Amino acid sequence: MQMNPDKDTQLCMSLSARPGNFGLRFHNHLYEQLGLNFYYKAFSSQDLAGAVAGIRALGIRGCGVSMPFKEACIALVDELDASAQAIQSINTIVNTDGYLKAYNTDYIAIAQLLDSHDVPRDTTFALRGSGGMAKAVASALRDGGYDNGVIVARNEATGAALAKSCGYEWQPALGAHRPQMLINVTPVGMTGGAEADLLAFEADAVDRAEIIFDVVAIPSETPLIVRGRDQGKKVITGLEVIAIQALEQFVLYTGVRPTQAQFQAAVAFARG
Amino acid sequence: MQMNPDKDTQLCMSLSARPGNFGLRFHNHLYEQLGLNFYYKAFSSQDLAGAVAGIRALGIRGCGVSMPFKEACIALVDELDASAQAIQSINTIVNTDGYLKAYNTDYIAIAQLLDSHDVPRDTTFALRGSGGMAKAVASALRDGGYDNGVIVARNEATGAALAKSCGYEWQPALGAHRPQMLINVTPVGMTGGAEADLLAFEADAVDRAEIIFDVVAIPSETPLIVRGRDQGKKVITGLEVIAIQALEQFVLYTGVRPTQAQFQAAVAFARG
Repeated sequence: MQMNPDKDTQLCMSLSARPGNFGLRFHNHLYEQLGLNFYYKAFSSQDLAGAVAGIRALGIRGCGVSMPFKEACIALVDELDASAQAIQSINTIVNTDGYLKAYNTDYIAIAQLLDSHDVPRDTTFALRGSGGMAKAVASALRDGGYDNGVIVARNEATGAALAKSCGYEWQPALGAHRPQMLINVTPVGMTGGAEADLLAFEADAVDRAEIIFDVVAIPSETPLIVRGRDQGKKVITGLEVIAIQALEQFVLYTGVRPTQAQFQAAVAFARG
Repeated sequence: MQMNPDKDTQLCMSLSARPGNFGLRFHNHLYEQLGLNFYYKAFSSQDLAGAVAGIRALGIRGCGVSMPFKEACIALVDELDASAQAIQSINTIVNTDGYLKAYNTDYIAIAQLLDSHDVPRDTTFALRGSGGMAKAVASALRDGGYDNGVIVARNEATGAALAKSCGYEWQPALGAHRPQMLINVTPVGMTGGAEADLLAFEADAVDRAEIIFDVVAIPSETPLIVRGRDQGKKVITGLEVIAIQALEQFVLYTGVRPTQAQFQAAVAFARG
């Protein structure tokens, strides 16, 4: 946060059922480092419409939107950026004089990571998962020109629907398929979950893959990432996803893009 | 503010057409000094209903309410404390799990100051003004048992109504009346106003009074206060009013009462 708040201090916020500390630490640290007169506050709420009314009425500059509000929020904003339109899910609201434009910086982060990690367009991949984040990842892949993929999901209804919406095939399980890139967008490997110690894909498939992408951020060193890293594969972690999506929110809210060093320091601070 | 905000940080706020810095500096300084995990933000708004919806939905702990919302806000809260009920005007909302109870800490501050300055109950007084703050002052006088007063206001409609509601007489001007206590609750003497350099009462009335009470806080050393102080009279300043009303808000929001030294230090910081 900026150290001397005054009447001109601008507020940014997050809205989720169960707030964490990463976002508020990341944003407040950068405000302080860059001398921006902003403050970031994490809110929980049961009342999305009231919260959005408050954002408008109080002139709150930006709002990060987490589960379970990412889709319900669409009806309450004035405009969807292409990133949110693509997946009909938003994670960021930018308030400019009462006009609310919504973005999905998860989608933006995934697209950036596929690019910065030089993932070839013709890479074969399997994406496991069919929830809101899976939609962001699958859409970023589709829009990035990654055509050779399958969606793997036990739930046929959501899995087949996601696959169809992005032009991919759906499979209930990976089976004998051995794609070049494995992407986990389920809670497998997440701290505190029932499957925290499990690999998100069969060990043999992991061993034969070239690129491992795990969206789980806590920990970012999931069993899947650790196994891929130990074998010298290219890995993309969930920490990279949450960090870049937060960075893009920061840029949208403040209009300022931190240097790479400032960004990395904020990520380190936010994790600490 | 507390220096290490986290997901449990509670927000308090003010709502006014044109926010100042005093309240936010006062509250944030005390949060820091007392190690309370709170942050105070000044908001302006044109949309009172939306703002109050936001307070409820986001669980904002407390809200100071300034002009022009002090009366319109009554319909939006769940309960009026006696201090707000007495004058049908609120300046403080306390949110306890979504239940909004409203107070008027101006009224509380006035009552405290009459007491702490040992103003005798039988003091004759003239109160100049008929706006919202005049209502708070007149009601505190009435409820404090100060029966020997007149309301002086050029505006007959508001002046007579205020006088009647509190059981006082109304006069359009002070005339030949020379009461023991003169109370200014108009903008006369306020920085930036058209009458910044004027005495709020006739010089002869000031010279013959024993107690001078001026609600104007910027500056707190108004021409009226300066003249009274120079003559060794008992004076009560607007700075005392805004400081004590802010202190009582602080206690309502946090449940913590600062020491006198902490309070005075916060006032000094807030003015700086």
